[in-house]
Amino acid sequence: MNFCSDNVTEVCPEIMAALIAANEGAMMPYGADEYTQRLEAKFSSIFETPVTVFPVATGSAANALALSAIAPSYGAIYCHAESHINVDECGAPEFYTGGAKLVTLNGTDAQIHPSELSNTLEKAGAGIVHHVQPAAVSITQATEAGTVYLPEEKSEIAKITHAHNLYLHIDGARFANAVVSLDCAPADITWGAGVDVLCFGATKNGAMAAEAVIFFNQDLAKTFAYRRKRSGHLFSKMRYLSAQLEAYITDDLWLKNASNANQMATKLAQGLVELPLVRLCHPVEVNEIFVEIPESVVNGLRADGFQFYVWQEENLPIIRLVTTFNTSDEDVDAFLKSVKRHSVVDLME
Amino acid sequence: MNFCSDNVTEVCPEIMAALIAANEGAMMPYGADEYTQRLEAKFSSIFETPVTVFPVATGSAANALALSAIAPSYGAIYCHAESHINVDECGAPEFYTGGAKLVTLNGTDAQIHPSELSNTLEKAGAGIVHHVQPAAVSITQATEAGTVYLPEEKSEIAKITHAHNLYLHIDGARFANAVVSLDCAPADITWGAGVDVLCFGATKNGAMAAEAVIFFNQDLAKTFAYRRKRSGHLFSKMRYLSAQLEAYITDDLWLKNASNANQMATKLAQGLVELPLVRLCHPVEVNEIFVEIPESVVNGLRADGFQFYVWQEENLPIIRLVTTFNTSDEDVDAFLKSVKRHSVVDLME
Amino acid sequence: MNFCSDNVTEVCPEIMAALIAANEGAMMPYGADEYTQRLEAKFSSIFETPVTVFPVATGSAANALALSAIAPSYGAIYCHAESHINVDECGAPEFYTGGAKLVTLNGTDAQIHPSELSNTLEKAGAGIVHHVQPAAVSITQATEAGTVYLPEEKSEIAKITHAHNLYLHIDGARFANAVVSLDCAPADITWGAGVDVLCFGATKNGAMAAEAVIFFNQDLAKTFAYRRKRSGHLFSKMRYLSAQLEAYITDDLWLKNASNANQMATKLAQGLVELPLVRLCHPVEVNEIFVEIPESVVNGLRADGFQFYVWQEENLPIIRLVTTFNTSDEDVDAFLKSVKRHSVVDLME
Amino acid sequence: MNFCSDNVTEVCPEIMAALIAANEGAMMPYGADEYTQRLEAKFSSIFETPVTVFPVATGSAANALALSAIAPSYGAIYCHAESHINVDECGAPEFYTGGAKLVTLNGTDAQIHPSELSNTLEKAGAGIVHHVQPAAVSITQATEAGTVYLPEEKSEIAKITHAHNLYLHIDGARFANAVVSLDCAPADITWGAGVDVLCFGATKNGAMAAEAVIFFNQDLAKTFAYRRKRSGHLFSKMRYLSAQLEAYITDDLWLKNASNANQMATKLAQGLVELPLVRLCHPVEVNEIFVEIPESVVNGLRADGFQFYVWQEENLPIIRLVTTFNTSDEDVDAFLKSVKRHSVVDLME
Repeated sequence: MNFCSDNVTEVCPEIMAALIAANEGAMMPYGADEYTQRLEAKFSSIFETPVTVFPVATGSAANALALSAIAPSYGAIYCHAESHINVDECGAPEFYTGGAKLVTLNGTDAQIHPSELSNTLEKAGAGIVHHVQPAAVSITQATEAGTVYLPEEKSEIAKITHAHNLYLHIDGARFANAVVSLDCAPADITWGAGVDVLCFGATKNGAMAAEAVIFFNQDLAKTFAYRRKRSGHLFSKMRYLSAQLEAYITDDLWLKNASNANQMATKLAQGLVELPLVRLCHPVEVNEIFVEIPESVVNGLRADGFQFYVWQEENLPIIRLVTTFNTSDEDVDAFLKSVKRHSVVDLME
Repeated sequence: MNFCSDNVTEVCPEIMAALIAANEGAMMPYGADEYTQRLEAKFSSIFETPVTVFPVATGSAANALALSAIAPSYGAIYCHAESHINVDECGAPEFYTGGAKLVTLNGTDAQIHPSELSNTLEKAGAGIVHHVQPAAVSITQATEAGTVYLPEEKSEIAKITHAHNLYLHIDGARFANAVVSLDCAPADITWGAGVDVLCFGATKNGAMAAEAVIFFNQDLAKTFAYRRKRSGHLFSKMRYLSAQLEAYITDDLWLKNASNANQMATKLAQGLVELPLVRLCHPVEVNEIFVEIPESVVNGLRADGFQFYVWQEENLPIIRLVTTFNTSDEDVDAFLKSVKRHSVVDLME
Repeated sequence: MNFCSDNVTEVCPEIMAALIAANEGAMMPYGADEYTQRLEAKFSSIFETPVTVFPVATGSAANALALSAIAPSYGAIYCHAESHINVDECGAPEFYTGGAKLVTLNGTDAQIHPSELSNTLEKAGAGIVHHVQPAAVSITQATEAGTVYLPEEKSEIAKITHAHNLYLHIDGARFANAVVSLDCAPADITWGAGVDVLCFGATKNGAMAAEAVIFFNQDLAKTFAYRRKRSGHLFSKMRYLSAQLEAYITDDLWLKNASNANQMATKLAQGLVELPLVRLCHPVEVNEIFVEIPESVVNGLRADGFQFYVWQEENLPIIRLVTTFNTSDEDVDAFLKSVKRHSVVDLME
Repeated sequence: MNFCSDNVTEVCPEIMAALIAANEGAMMPYGADEYTQRLEAKFSSIFETPVTVFPVATGSAANALALSAIAPSYGAIYCHAESHINVDECGAPEFYTGGAKLVTLNGTDAQIHPSELSNTLEKAGAGIVHHVQPAAVSITQATEAGTVYLPEEKSEIAKITHAHNLYLHIDGARFANAVVSLDCAPADITWGAGVDVLCFGATKNGAMAAEAVIFFNQDLAKTFAYRRKRSGHLFSKMRYLSAQLEAYITDDLWLKNASNANQMATKLAQGLVELPLVRLCHPVEVNEIFVEIPESVVNGLRADGFQFYVWQEENLPIIRLVTTFNTSDEDVDAFLKSVKRHSVVDLME
């Protein structure tokens, strides 16, 4: 059983069916197909505002392209030190922006705290030629620690961001999980809370390889099509990207998939906290669990066939468990049973 | 009936079946899946030499990434003026290399002529600090004019390229069509003819979105993985790229698909040259036909429901016709019949 | 005697005196000195319009920085194939723009012809995502062939440029020589003729190392200060750049220096055309002469101690002769005498 | 009296004399002059090992170019959070490297501590495609806090750097001050201590605008000439850069100038610590003093005509005082007298 990541899963049935259905006959390339053509209207409806939408295949591409549209090469992008754009994209934002600087902030649960952001921007040296120029703030929703920003926190960050004439970007690789967790309208935690551009993930939540870059501030989208083409991210057979996204947002599939993932994480977390020797590192608000666990239990779980990443190899290792659209009650029960069994052994030793 | 391009088609049945088959259970991401793991051995077998292989989703990405691995930012890349990398990628090679310069050569049928290449490199200013430094030669096989380089022509180009300490890159978006046309071993027109790196296309020949960057000169591949990740072209659910490529090179599917495309182009060309008022602009050696045709016939064809691109809007327009893995005899017959009908009308006027 | 280039000379006495005079006491750095502070007013007066001015030390820096301020990374810059930015800056414009493409035009005497520019821009694919996007036109005044654009030619080019929403850049490494040659107001061949940004050279005309990037379209200057700093071209002891420029434009020194250079070139050309075996390749309109001359004469001149570049090593070599602010009548006479002597020998053989 | 920085001074007499002496007659450009030609031998002698030397005009250019020669675009450069390359160059290293990431370390007195470096490199993810790849370590000698690394500290850093296959770069904007402070051979704190490339500053210590990029690891220098030209930092009239550097290293001028600056700083610091209300923030090891001082004293000093930067505007402001090659005993006495006078007033209030 694989709890490594939400990118280890197969494609969910509805999206696979959509790909098969799209595989009929010739269609004009590069987005001139019917699937792509109707995508913007569908996203505009979901977000209750006109949006400009660009499908791309990967989250790193989505983030880096979006950031390159809002930060100049001499710009500074403020983000959390643990953010995916800072840690896990091999410098993609720097490459796409032509060398902008990611200025990192700290904060518990992988969240930027408005006051630290405010202090940092005050001292950032806007207008002083020796310093990179503040351009954008990027936050992740849900965060890399499996937590969510509340709408009011996001509004506060957006207010500070805009007060300094910066733009606000959301890395939404797990955006669906955040919406489900907050039980809010998508608008409430995006443009309603001051977001300029959102990278709306689907791959981690059941798609094959599809993300949508969504501009609420549509003026910022003007150069995007050239940037996407120039980076090799414009698909010729675009219908297959768009069909994934269309299926994903049809009949609330994105929310249903995320609901299952979130519920399974909650169940897993509840089971874990009842056990001795186990400590949750962050609140479990979406589909990721970071948990401190004895090494013997880690080894026992692996011997039982469970897969997961060790996040920090400390005395007491921290492991990450990620649930997905197709994690089942049985998967969770089996995992908890295994932990329990190995913990008992550990306690007895 | 759509003769616009080989990227207007659906995915061929064998590749779609492979995608469906790959959609079973969890697999480790980013290429740690079984499909990707066995890909290099399969390609090495097809090319009869050990190769390093990187799947990516688009041809522009494949080309730009490959070129960035062989040309420094202060480098010059020699290519035909009509080449896809020069004309149709919105500057992707320049972006990925950090600003290398594409130096364009002319030559009939979209082919670089060895003597012009040689003359150009002699005067290129290697070692002189004022000039961009010769780094790579890029040719397209089959070319953008639907022609092929003969193995001996390619060897001659490679010899010149290497004599000047440059690397040879092939844009092989239609590589299968070239192999079929030349009826040669893939090795003969790649490493056997001095090629360092090949962008091996599948998308235009039946895949959904899959290309393989194949390094024959494996030393050049060392930085590629970082470049691919950094540009957002490393797929998390990599199995779906690799499964396409695997199916594509299994049981000679790539050659079968290309054979049909080439045969249909030949048939179409043979039908066209028998007609009055029609002139082929280039030899028809693969699956592309460039043909001069009266405007009235262009309009007639369109009225009959045929789709194609007008390549040059001159007095006598030049249109491009592209046949594909699933173009049928009936498609070709219908097109020829329509041309004939409208030509007669034109002659009578 | 050195006719290689106008960059082989020492610094002219007035500018050296200004450097010595500026070397008094502490001054605030990075342009907060009195010399730099008053520079914009002085240039605005010379050009009879408000301008924004940035001193830099080299012509390549001036050109590349100016182009990066007016062309995006996915942009196309139209220039002559023989232009300095295309041939002699090791790809600096591509580096500074993040990979924009220099699209080259031909034309006699190193001049872009309005009709070719117009035709090229018509077909450039503005708004089509596959193609680099037309952004700027760059011309050199005086040109690399030692000729000048007439005000009306430049106006025509500017009109076409602006009609396509592009910006017009002038490489003015020898701008003073052009002004003297045309005997016009500086305004007439810059903003009066539609120029957006001028790289105003001083180094080739008596300065140590100083050029001014002058924005007539001052909106375009907004990002320049960051680009200059970020590329290491903001001098801390800026007074020494500004003092050079100030001296250069004071009391018409720039025009006086250029007048001498132009006059000596005219005299030299007049002497040359009277000789047999000698052919001027371009009209001599400023301070550069390109002349076809027998190889034996080339060798004879060298034996007599004259230095110059052989521009093309053909059967009949073409040499370039450049006169400068301090070329004297005696220098020219000596050179002509030497040519004459070696030509006679050549004719007798 | 100006204590703002060592870049507010005029050029020292010996270097100005050298510039005047170099201003005689024509010389071939771009480094083909006698001054530049003999520079490498002279630097090799000073460093007691063969070195490759490239003169450039600014420290930012020197640093960014040197880093671009040792770090790929997907690389990580480890430096102190307060380092000039991280804070004060508007992102120049990112621009020149094509987007490498500066990973910042902390440490007292603006110094990287070997153990933190070691820990950071252990966890840096070398070879893991998701992370930027460790490429270089950059330290400043003397540091931005006016302190120096001891030879053994530098050796320790170099050992860690090389053990991880990275290169070691020194920002030596105040290298002369460090050599004087340590009273060591230049070799001892450069190649003898494992340094690969040094940016050897002259501008802050009496030159007009001149720095030398010195490669001890000469293999790393191969691409530098192209990078310098391509960034507009190759001077045509190179003799004027080289003449500055030659004079600077002739007859120990660089050490004499630095000695005065260091001595005056020591004297100033000694005077300050005897005063009440004043606290030194860092050891004073070269020519910079960071001192906590009451706001009333700051205002009093300014009223008396002293210039300096307020480094941190806290309750108790921290000011920076920089002494230079031409700071005199009288300057220091006058400053101390003014501090004393205003401190007494402050104490009495």
